[in-house]
Amino acid sequence: MDVRELVGQARRGRPRAVARLISLVENAVDNAVDNAVENAAGTAGHAGGDRAGAPAASRALREAMAELATGAARPYSARVIGLTGSPGVGKSTSTGMLIRAFRRRGSRVGVLAVDPSSPFTGGALLGDRVRMQDHATDPGVFIRSMSSRGHLGGLAWATPQALRVLEAAGCDVILVETVGVGQAEVDIARLADTTVVILAPGMGDGVQAAKAGILEVADVLVVNKADRDGVQATVRELRNMTGLVEAAWRPPIVTTVASRGEGADDLLAALDKHYAYLEESGEARRRRLARARDEIEAIALAQLRSRFAVLHGDRLDALAERLLGAETDPYAAADDLIAALR
Amino acid sequence: MDVRELVGQARRGRPRAVARLISLVENAVDNAVDNAVENAAGTAGHAGGDRAGAPAASRALREAMAELATGAARPYSARVIGLTGSPGVGKSTSTGMLIRAFRRRGSRVGVLAVDPSSPFTGGALLGDRVRMQDHATDPGVFIRSMSSRGHLGGLAWATPQALRVLEAAGCDVILVETVGVGQAEVDIARLADTTVVILAPGMGDGVQAAKAGILEVADVLVVNKADRDGVQATVRELRNMTGLVEAAWRPPIVTTVASRGEGADDLLAALDKHYAYLEESGEARRRRLARARDEIEAIALAQLRSRFAVLHGDRLDALAERLLGAETDPYAAADDLIAALR
Repeated sequence: MDVRELVGQARRGRPRAVARLISLVENAVDNAVDNAVENAAGTAGHAGGDRAGAPAASRALREAMAELATGAARPYSARVIGLTGSPGVGKSTSTGMLIRAFRRRGSRVGVLAVDPSSPFTGGALLGDRVRMQDHATDPGVFIRSMSSRGHLGGLAWATPQALRVLEAAGCDVILVETVGVGQAEVDIARLADTTVVILAPGMGDGVQAAKAGILEVADVLVVNKADRDGVQATVRELRNMTGLVEAAWRPPIVTTVASRGEGADDLLAALDKHYAYLEESGEARRRRLARARDEIEAIALAQLRSRFAVLHGDRLDALAERLLGAETDPYAAADDLIAALR
Repeated sequence: MDVRELVGQARRGRPRAVARLISLVENAVDNAVDNAVENAAGTAGHAGGDRAGAPAASRALREAMAELATGAARPYSARVIGLTGSPGVGKSTSTGMLIRAFRRRGSRVGVLAVDPSSPFTGGALLGDRVRMQDHATDPGVFIRSMSSRGHLGGLAWATPQALRVLEAAGCDVILVETVGVGQAEVDIARLADTTVVILAPGMGDGVQAAKAGILEVADVLVVNKADRDGVQATVRELRNMTGLVEAAWRPPIVTTVASRGEGADDLLAALDKHYAYLEESGEARRRRLARARDEIEAIALAQLRSRFAVLHGDRLDALAERLLGAETDPYAAADDLIAALR
């Protein structure tokens, strides 16, 4: 199918077109490297098979993004809400609760479940995907899980481009769900308008230790499973932490029982309040500019990396041999590799 | 202190010199950006304060790595063993068990506890650090936890350089412990000679879902907490998975109760067997070459990224503005940024 046609269908809200465009994003880095290796090996153009399709896919992505970034595609039109937290706190249940809450308002909702591709979290996400099938027949909801295992700056690279697809499809709200471990969480906080950190009672020590990290990323704090013991202690602890925040926005603390939909209205109110704050303070624009900067930088670095691997693979191999033989040092070797770009 | 002197002290096994050199690695990317920003602002050279020290730190790292990569510093002299697994499977207890086992042989042991810097895993690692104090008075053991939150390809960048420091300090074995979630795990598998994936009984569904991921990274599989129910089922499941492996090395499955030291000899035997396989098959050299390649590439990309941020920050800002205004698309903007490097 023609890319322009595919983008056109996505704009008309066709789920399969949306899914195909996000797949283009997800497969792009791998394809780019595969292609270049193939071209080098002289096997490009071989008819049939997965690999033969790759060069077109990569050109297709560039074309798709050009279509999606300009004109009638509504870039930066959706509220992007990141949801993060440790395994087991109820991220997917909370996502489900928010989908329903935004749907009741008539919003069109996109969901990106960003799997940092652990073999271990993989299992949990499979379960989540099944749970999200509740919304499978609702044409106002697009749900997609993405993985980016092994990609350079995977999430930072892929997610902004996937957001463009969902924005083109008319989503008013996009929920990005990611497990709250390490880099993934920081990446999500950088691209979301509002970042929700979800906790559950009984993580006392963890919360203390996590102080700096949570405050770094959270715009709204949720204590889920609020029907369990220890909820008051967790809320108190969080309140002590946020009490020290001197910034213009102090993260509110919302308690929920997402499995029963309890607290949905409070959470929605907190999200709306933060959105209003973002718009009034000019912070919304600042965040979107930062997202645009990160997106450009991530694409540029991925392009450079694929040049290293492909165009300068022999030089990199030779430098690695010399490093192994103690004939150079890693910084001198890196300088040499960078010089190859000129 | 003079860098040459610091490296000299590390080679003589002085723990504080080892710690200072690893700190140089850990702080380097941030410093590099800080410096360049300061230089641009004309505030470099301001006496006293943390920031004034930064430019020296960055030069110091380059000098240190040049010293450590060549000559008498024994690069690539240690066996690097990665330990990974979900939170709660007993990674740190297993690490402790291996420290004791290698110490009984008279090996000098380095440990890098690589924290992907989640606010949430932060808590657990604090506990682990305390537990590892058992070895605090043993001059044959260096233990260091590292974080790399927010760095470009953080672990891939920092860990190989930290390994150089520990190798220079005479470590025969280096254990790299990381939580088995997402990119961190893949990074560790790429730089270790042997990767140990640790599981615990009762993760049945997870194991099934994780099939591909585990087999992708594991050289040795450990079922820890083997005194619990369900250990046989977990072992059987893993055996069914590894039975399908057609590669020259099929990951053995070892059961342990690390908290009581049970299974230490079996695990050591499995590690030795894998090491012998690596050496005989030529795979050892291949893996070390891959580690060298990754190290060079990660440094080169970090240098390029800091050039984007610093030398070309204005251009990046302008491109982001245009992207936000739908006047360009992300790939065209990335091309423009790359062109600035020339």
